[in-house]
Amino acid sequence: MKSRLYFNRLDNLDNIKEELFNSIKKEKNSIGYYNLPNEDISSILEYADNFNRKIKNIVVVGIGGSSLGAKAVYNFLKPIKDMKRRLLFFESTDPLNISELIKEIDIDKSHFIIISKSGRTVETISIFKYIYAKNQNRNSYTFITDRGSNLDRFAKSIGSKIFYIPSMVGGRFSVLSSVGLVPLALCGIDIKTLLKGAKKIKKSFFEDGDIKSTLLDKAIFYAKNHEKYSINTLFAYSEGLKYFTEWYVQLWGESLGKIQNSSILNIGLTPIGIIGSRDQHSFLQLIMEGKRDKSVTFIKIKEHKSKLKVPDITLANLEDLDILNGIEFGDLINMQCDSIIEALLNEKDIPVDEVIISKVDEKSIGELIYYYELLTSLIGRLFNINTYNQNGVEAGKIILKEKLVTLKR
Amino acid sequence: MKSRLYFNRLDNLDNIKEELFNSIKKEKNSIGYYNLPNEDISSILEYADNFNRKIKNIVVVGIGGSSLGAKAVYNFLKPIKDMKRRLLFFESTDPLNISELIKEIDIDKSHFIIISKSGRTVETISIFKYIYAKNQNRNSYTFITDRGSNLDRFAKSIGSKIFYIPSMVGGRFSVLSSVGLVPLALCGIDIKTLLKGAKKIKKSFFEDGDIKSTLLDKAIFYAKNHEKYSINTLFAYSEGLKYFTEWYVQLWGESLGKIQNSSILNIGLTPIGIIGSRDQHSFLQLIMEGKRDKSVTFIKIKEHKSKLKVPDITLANLEDLDILNGIEFGDLINMQCDSIIEALLNEKDIPVDEVIISKVDEKSIGELIYYYELLTSLIGRLFNINTYNQNGVEAGKIILKEKLVTLKR
Repeated sequence: MKSRLYFNRLDNLDNIKEELFNSIKKEKNSIGYYNLPNEDISSILEYADNFNRKIKNIVVVGIGGSSLGAKAVYNFLKPIKDMKRRLLFFESTDPLNISELIKEIDIDKSHFIIISKSGRTVETISIFKYIYAKNQNRNSYTFITDRGSNLDRFAKSIGSKIFYIPSMVGGRFSVLSSVGLVPLALCGIDIKTLLKGAKKIKKSFFEDGDIKSTLLDKAIFYAKNHEKYSINTLFAYSEGLKYFTEWYVQLWGESLGKIQNSSILNIGLTPIGIIGSRDQHSFLQLIMEGKRDKSVTFIKIKEHKSKLKVPDITLANLEDLDILNGIEFGDLINMQCDSIIEALLNEKDIPVDEVIISKVDEKSIGELIYYYELLTSLIGRLFNINTYNQNGVEAGKIILKEKLVTLKR
Repeated sequence: MKSRLYFNRLDNLDNIKEELFNSIKKEKNSIGYYNLPNEDISSILEYADNFNRKIKNIVVVGIGGSSLGAKAVYNFLKPIKDMKRRLLFFESTDPLNISELIKEIDIDKSHFIIISKSGRTVETISIFKYIYAKNQNRNSYTFITDRGSNLDRFAKSIGSKIFYIPSMVGGRFSVLSSVGLVPLALCGIDIKTLLKGAKKIKKSFFEDGDIKSTLLDKAIFYAKNHEKYSINTLFAYSEGLKYFTEWYVQLWGESLGKIQNSSILNIGLTPIGIIGSRDQHSFLQLIMEGKRDKSVTFIKIKEHKSKLKVPDITLANLEDLDILNGIEFGDLINMQCDSIIEALLNEKDIPVDEVIISKVDEKSIGELIYYYELLTSLIGRLFNINTYNQNGVEAGKIILKEKLVTLKR
């Protein structure tokens, strides 16, 4: 992975950088996600190796941090991998969506992974009940939850397989734990190599590699300029990264949208995920001419494995586009990305940076995940907020509970 | 459809409202989209009725305004309709994405609708060439383009069917023209009723109905407060509206992200689409506690046709969620929506409004489309910008062309 900043790094920041780095090193001892690349995964690998070969659908019942990570990795790799099993997600109370998904699977030939940290997630438990009413075979379920949660106790009572979420790992930082690794391993994704990618970034950051100074500079720039550039647009030039951008939106939205510890100030950076070249025809106009409140990060894949080409044919009256003839689509999409970067750099007041991953594989997406987790933690430190809670979502849950109680009376 | 504003309408605006309304009435004579609900669609209906029954896949090759509208309507209605044909979209130069789509269809048993207003869209023409090299049967293609474009002349040269885009209808305002109607009609969607929905909103707005004053008030509020509330979050409580939010993002992004006519000021409103209840576990935290720069519009479906329920079963240790037992998922999702609205209204500085459509059907999505088109035009007038061009995307195209020319040398 290469990470290039096209905006000017701020000067005279050695002290701030040193302090920031030290505070993250300290945080590393108490926040669980930092260490996930080094955890022992043998029990997950063994579980996946010995899994019932007749099962062809793995269905995750989970929402937010319990689904977005696995969804991001699975969809990135799907076009290049012959998956052992199909991965599906129930993550909405929309009845039409639930019916559509039910139609797609055979409940008796699917395996359900029920994921809820607390075991109290309304969506997850209500959908689980719906499925469980139709299939009470304990071998059809794997549960992933916090040790000692209600869901843990339920799973024990029926004798299903349980994986625990390591302590101090929040939902949106859990993709490299059992939450992401169990469903991904069951689909045949090489989770060892996924973690190897994450480990590489971890080492580069904590042991003075390339990525350390770039990440520190980037975080400081974003944090210092958060009032002016309050939006970050992640412009990924790969359809396979669509769900990665959704994971990033949750990661930033929930981690960085906070009331500051030191004040009553509402602070945040608004994440927006878009896909190239497609969204050149949608969101780009707003970046180019709209309010100057957006930094833009491009993600590019260096080497597209596909050799798919625009054929070398001339069509009557369409000759002016013969300029495209013979070009590989992989080169075309990267040239489109480079052209937009150039166009933005010709504008004033649009901070641009670029993350280049080498190819579509497990290692690259592992790198990308850990890079974004670190960046999030760094900005959170600079904002002086608690990056790892999400108190803001409680109010709605309490109101819903009151409404439900009133309904029952 | 009901549209309710929970923020205070600004006072003493009768003159501004009168002026705004009159300028839109004037614009209606020159901008084509306003009149689309009243156009004659008999040629489209006839084409769809007599279409080859063996064709089971309709493949749109188009991007941005040429794909997002049909995609929004199709995906909204898919869960409730037995579609005559499947609708697919090629809208990216990503080679892995192209290969995946090609694998899903049989090129000889599919019909391709090639949509490009100008006939010069890089993505569309390069993908069309790829497909055309494999299948030169003129009956496998329908072209939708501007009269007299290069693509029009090419289509004539091979003798394929052509539909034209009415004059003065821009891509992102074209879903109710041939651009959206032809692919939708071929899938068996009732395009007459779709237009009826749009016509209802048109009538209500231009002939002093309910929607007129609400739309004027809403547009004026958004425009007056554009510096403070520079982001609008569209929070749709229906998975089926996911692509509608993508259509809205393009509509607002390209229409409202502009350099003002009267100055060199970069102006805009940043559109963000999210889906409930799912994104309560992703973006909601940022709305609740983050920077106060977001207005939030909720879309709710009044009557979910589905009777799907949470079963009335008690599970050991999960008794505290028995409160959900017996509830219809359709009621649950709406209660979730109402709870979040209430939670936001308890906060300061978050302007909230709500759009309620009656059910999942053609009429409702037609209403929603026209409502959003009108709202966009109104804000554009107040911004004193050209709502209907997109000059900002040209720079990147020119740079790409230069790169391609250099490559060929």
